[in-house]
Amino acid sequence: MERVLVVKNILDANSKIAQENKKLFAAHNLFVLNLMSSPGAGKTTLLEEMGRALSGTCSIGVIEGDIQTSIDAERVAAAGLTAVQIETAGACHLDANMIQNALAGLDLAALDLLVIENVGNLVCPAEFNVGENSKVMMLSVTEGDDKPLKYPLMFQESEVLLISKVDLLPHLRCNIDALKKAALSINPALVIMEISSYTGQGLDQWHRWLRTKISGE
Amino acid sequence: MERVLVVKNILDANSKIAQENKKLFAAHNLFVLNLMSSPGAGKTTLLEEMGRALSGTCSIGVIEGDIQTSIDAERVAAAGLTAVQIETAGACHLDANMIQNALAGLDLAALDLLVIENVGNLVCPAEFNVGENSKVMMLSVTEGDDKPLKYPLMFQESEVLLISKVDLLPHLRCNIDALKKAALSINPALVIMEISSYTGQGLDQWHRWLRTKISGE
Repeated sequence: MERVLVVKNILDANSKIAQENKKLFAAHNLFVLNLMSSPGAGKTTLLEEMGRALSGTCSIGVIEGDIQTSIDAERVAAAGLTAVQIETAGACHLDANMIQNALAGLDLAALDLLVIENVGNLVCPAEFNVGENSKVMMLSVTEGDDKPLKYPLMFQESEVLLISKVDLLPHLRCNIDALKKAALSINPALVIMEISSYTGQGLDQWHRWLRTKISGE
Repeated sequence: MERVLVVKNILDANSKIAQENKKLFAAHNLFVLNLMSSPGAGKTTLLEEMGRALSGTCSIGVIEGDIQTSIDAERVAAAGLTAVQIETAGACHLDANMIQNALAGLDLAALDLLVIENVGNLVCPAEFNVGENSKVMMLSVTEGDDKPLKYPLMFQESEVLLISKVDLLPHLRCNIDALKKAALSINPALVIMEISSYTGQGLDQWHRWLRTKISGE
């Protein structure tokens, strides 16, 4: 019981700071995405593609969450995005307090979109709101079609599921229809897009979704 | 500081139970593996292959850790292994106490090898000893060659790194030599094997390693 109470206190404290972040984002008319997935599903590669496709028409900031290294911040900065790196020093997710601290490194007034790239982990990040407008998750087809049923929380919490690496489907035993059906059984409102950052498949649809959100429609 | 103390107390309590598990395993002359990876790296498929290759000559038990569902226990049982499922109900890793409770469902005296398939997560499972003799991690080539530097703890803690899904390398930008070099920079003693459960590549080497460990050489 003591451990449950501790977890509840941590989540309550997190919620309070997440609300503060949310107010700050609203004051700057900023659309904020919390991008989550397992390690290596393709979050950073997607951000690089977003940089190429969108940075001419809107200003995108990125907060990179990693346990160690600033590899990802360097990659997205090279793609024309404004990046801040959080090294969590072992922590397996980002929380609202880490985001609040990182915001000091960004000029929010100059941004149209802020993407928070969470630590690669299909479990813990979904438990922590950070003040975002929308949670978006990626699942690569290489991870298998059984993942929605085995890791339901992130599918429940997300507004969009990006099924990534669909160019690899011919080489896998993954049944993408079963995957989508399982995801919708957990969250019937989930918006699902099939994408490949290698071939470009589905990226136009994703960028359209982002533009609509940024313009506040 | 309070939060750090709580984490320390949890880890201390875990270590105590892990020691009890370890004694019990030793009393039964049982070799116990803690198998860890991101979601979908191929742990369960590898266990199915191990069932086919080894169950004629040794008796293998499996404790399946999942947040939800008993899909994996059913899969490995169908491959001829004795399986017990732990549903962690949200927890992102297995701990020594969960294992201690699950052991009641297994006849340890009848087993030569016990594999604990951890929750799919490249971060948290590496923090919790469960009394195992050896930690083995899998990383699929689809996850990318930057993962050792970004998620160092599991690479540090593991005795073996199984690089899985190498049959997909021709379709990826993953540099497997860079991956191995990065892993060895974190843990120079790491035993690395390249495997594919689809083509069978590397499985003989893995099964030989297991047989040596089981026979206590």
